[in-house]
Amino acid sequence: MSSERLIYLPLGGAGEIGMNAYVYGYGKPNEERLIVIDLGVTFPDMDGSPGVDLILPDVSWLEERKDRIEAVFVTHAHEDHVGAISHTYSRLEAPIYARPFTANIARRKMSEYGYPDEAVTVMGSWPEQRDFGPFKVGFLPISHSIPESGALVIGTPAGRIVHTGDFKLDETPVVGEAFDPELWAEVCKDGVKVLVCDSTNVFSPNAGQSEITVGPEIEKMVLAATGMVVATTFASNVARVKTLAEAGERAGRSIVLLGRAMRRMLEASIETGVLKDFPKVISPDDAKALPREKVMLLVTGSQGERRAASAQLARGKYMGLTMKEGDTFLFSSKTIPGNEKGVIHIMNAFSEKGVDVVDDSSGHFHVSGHANRPDIQRMHDIVKPEILIPMHGEHRHLREHVKLGAEKDITGVLAVNGMMIDLTGDKPQVAEYIETGRTYLDGSVQIGALDGVVRDRIRMALNGHVIVTLIMDEDDEPLGDPWCEVMGLAETGTSNTALTEVLEADLSQFLGRANAKTLRDDAKLNEALRKIVRQTGQNEVGKKPEVTIVVSRLS
Amino acid sequence: MSSERLIYLPLGGAGEIGMNAYVYGYGKPNEERLIVIDLGVTFPDMDGSPGVDLILPDVSWLEERKDRIEAVFVTHAHEDHVGAISHTYSRLEAPIYARPFTANIARRKMSEYGYPDEAVTVMGSWPEQRDFGPFKVGFLPISHSIPESGALVIGTPAGRIVHTGDFKLDETPVVGEAFDPELWAEVCKDGVKVLVCDSTNVFSPNAGQSEITVGPEIEKMVLAATGMVVATTFASNVARVKTLAEAGERAGRSIVLLGRAMRRMLEASIETGVLKDFPKVISPDDAKALPREKVMLLVTGSQGERRAASAQLARGKYMGLTMKEGDTFLFSSKTIPGNEKGVIHIMNAFSEKGVDVVDDSSGHFHVSGHANRPDIQRMHDIVKPEILIPMHGEHRHLREHVKLGAEKDITGVLAVNGMMIDLTGDKPQVAEYIETGRTYLDGSVQIGALDGVVRDRIRMALNGHVIVTLIMDEDDEPLGDPWCEVMGLAETGTSNTALTEVLEADLSQFLGRANAKTLRDDAKLNEALRKIVRQTGQNEVGKKPEVTIVVSRLS
Repeated sequence: MSSERLIYLPLGGAGEIGMNAYVYGYGKPNEERLIVIDLGVTFPDMDGSPGVDLILPDVSWLEERKDRIEAVFVTHAHEDHVGAISHTYSRLEAPIYARPFTANIARRKMSEYGYPDEAVTVMGSWPEQRDFGPFKVGFLPISHSIPESGALVIGTPAGRIVHTGDFKLDETPVVGEAFDPELWAEVCKDGVKVLVCDSTNVFSPNAGQSEITVGPEIEKMVLAATGMVVATTFASNVARVKTLAEAGERAGRSIVLLGRAMRRMLEASIETGVLKDFPKVISPDDAKALPREKVMLLVTGSQGERRAASAQLARGKYMGLTMKEGDTFLFSSKTIPGNEKGVIHIMNAFSEKGVDVVDDSSGHFHVSGHANRPDIQRMHDIVKPEILIPMHGEHRHLREHVKLGAEKDITGVLAVNGMMIDLTGDKPQVAEYIETGRTYLDGSVQIGALDGVVRDRIRMALNGHVIVTLIMDEDDEPLGDPWCEVMGLAETGTSNTALTEVLEADLSQFLGRANAKTLRDDAKLNEALRKIVRQTGQNEVGKKPEVTIVVSRLS
Repeated sequence: MSSERLIYLPLGGAGEIGMNAYVYGYGKPNEERLIVIDLGVTFPDMDGSPGVDLILPDVSWLEERKDRIEAVFVTHAHEDHVGAISHTYSRLEAPIYARPFTANIARRKMSEYGYPDEAVTVMGSWPEQRDFGPFKVGFLPISHSIPESGALVIGTPAGRIVHTGDFKLDETPVVGEAFDPELWAEVCKDGVKVLVCDSTNVFSPNAGQSEITVGPEIEKMVLAATGMVVATTFASNVARVKTLAEAGERAGRSIVLLGRAMRRMLEASIETGVLKDFPKVISPDDAKALPREKVMLLVTGSQGERRAASAQLARGKYMGLTMKEGDTFLFSSKTIPGNEKGVIHIMNAFSEKGVDVVDDSSGHFHVSGHANRPDIQRMHDIVKPEILIPMHGEHRHLREHVKLGAEKDITGVLAVNGMMIDLTGDKPQVAEYIETGRTYLDGSVQIGALDGVVRDRIRMALNGHVIVTLIMDEDDEPLGDPWCEVMGLAETGTSNTALTEVLEADLSQFLGRANAKTLRDDAKLNEALRKIVRQTGQNEVGKKPEVTIVVSRLS
């Protein structure tokens, strides 16, 4: 017995916000039975991952041990927690467990890839618990910005773990279960060995606001508006969507839902009984027949996503609906770092149409879904763990969260992706460093982030691309001149001649002088030609391009 | 006389924040004498302008009329106002005027491109005025986040214009002239026809804070710090650099300046007498010999720029200096939208080293250089213009600023880049729409933003690039198989064979079936091959790549 151990291993989400994937194990070293909490994605950008569709955690470590995986649990249906399940399912082949709403969304994702509903098992909430090898696991309801978020209470032979998932302490969340401090106190009263805790808002100094505070402010705004009102928020924030719709209804407006994600989330909420009453919704066509001041649209695209309803309205029309002078557009959302330019772009496009844009700079039209600093402290106080492991944060968040715990003398562990922590003894310690990383979903294939594919794309984008083709005859002599094609470079440079001509002239000159040995040796020839292209590029246009050389030998 | 007109034409800065370039003209239509205020740059990014070095306003319209340009005035030495002077000088050949500090910086920029100091003429400040054709122009001091910012007072036969440049109303600016409300009132007392006014902070509801408020807070922070303190701000914010240095000195620390821009700005401030006293500065080598708690570094790179001192310290060392556990890093700055990810990256790198990062989320360690909403209103009240033209703002800022003026019954004109406004009569009106745009400095050449060069780069980055080479013999029959090279695409796709092999097989199959007419016709052949590559790419890896086809005919 003494040789068995309890381990914690984040594969994603610890040292970043996004792409959550946490592993717990119990058993003899290298024979532990494993459970996985969340398999999420993060989103690509032009800076680091151009052309990529989604970023997944690298699950190679798990795949190699897939016979030891008891289950995957999904805490809630946000993309950074559930988005990777369908992309990793064939590699891990592990059953997925979630509460009804989350399971509904998870099954929709799985079915897109042809997996049956049975891949996802619905679990009830606490006190329901099930055994998974050495683990006894139950979902403990917690409030967040999506219905039915669940913390996980994980019983192990080495003590109890509470894994919060994403949370806030909202006792009036509009939709879904309120945070229940008595229930939490009850669950934790017999002692919690480890609290693994959301760190997102550890730098926000004031206690978080309840979802219920947003409604009256939105209602005031909608009542004051004269033209059409269009509001956007995260589609998964069902409570907010309801609040917005009710504010519109009370202001005598008919509600239209635009955007696939918005409709899908509402559908799932109604199917699972999470959402009981929602204002009557009309179709875009019916809305067109009404006076503008009698209509309120709820649309996707709060982050400025180019293909979402809000961006399409900003560019022109969506489902036949347009915005114009005197209308109001409300961002009932915050802009996630990195999305600022896209959001600002939309704001300006609306401004050009004479649309009044209202964002959350006043702090009245949005509240965060994550616990702020005092709320995190309250969670520490309720759970009273022996050990605190901050998760769901960049390094700076995790570090600050450890410090926050230390104020109450809680032993903190700063564990980033790949750090396997042995939690068995009195003091947590690093057991091993696991190689972790990111996998790109790129078109229809998965590639490693370090495979070089994306690095080549970035280089072509920064430096342009020159293609040199050269035919060598049977005697290993150039047949005619080399030919250059250029992509992503200025047509003419400092010598005021076409860049391709200058390149071809410089390459021809070299070939005329090159000795037979060089001409016969592909590697040498390529290297020499590449060097000339880069040097000429530098001289002519001030850039050293990427170079592809194709030498065809007729021999 | 009645046929002469006064025109305003923004070529940059109106409808964006950055790349300022404003033209005023007076005279018979199409014979107006012209003056230009500011020639600034804006900065490229991976999303829209990968590989580009700087973005300049397109000055073609001015170049075609360069014989009519009397002068270029530079309001202050920020890059978005002065950055393009050296890159446009050979095209416009117009004399440049600026106040001493701005001229010092301008001359440094000009000399990098081999232009003599005489290209830039130093002008004193109000009441000095000079005649430039029909214009009488004087620099009226105004506070901003750089020394010697100057509004321009422009006398014309059609009335007086006040062009604010960037400003805040700071009566205690630490370095440089305080805002002098009496002087401004005096200048404006005989009536101002047009106020062309900074709009940057029109959405900031509370009056701006003076530079002097920052010092005590920074001093408190530095006194409380135990390890080394490193602070960053905009190098051009000489007042802030001085405040930081003095706080360090009072806390018993020796000051080190790191980063070329930081040293250059201080040098210019001292040379021009703008900065009289500054704490003694020591070298990085001397700093190494001191205990950490006796050292304070002031460094460049508040925006997370990869090559600046702060980023280098985050990665490892700079000039032999390193940061470690217990040190403090202060961002005495705000993050410009679009730079969030770079700044956050640095924050996390410091966190990994155990360095405490302090940013301005408390609002204590930075104040803006731009007038907030109530300050802009105060400017309206002082100048009392007949016409208000908001500038230095995105569309939403300009629009809001027009609304703000309307509250006091000022006629507002929402003029974006390319809108030529006739200001002569009682009512301003649009005289003409001029084609404007952006010019990219790309390596050593200037290219038009719409030339397609950067579009091709973006496409390669998003879709990858396939190069097909094919040799056709004297009978227009393929000599051997086509050859494919791939850059920026997954090596293998759904059929589990190398992508290049699948491509080559599909192309060969097509060539085997193609009729002689297609094989003889370059355009047809290219189009057919391209289509196959894109279709095979889609099937194999889910992407339609960019394609370059090189057919060599031996005939």
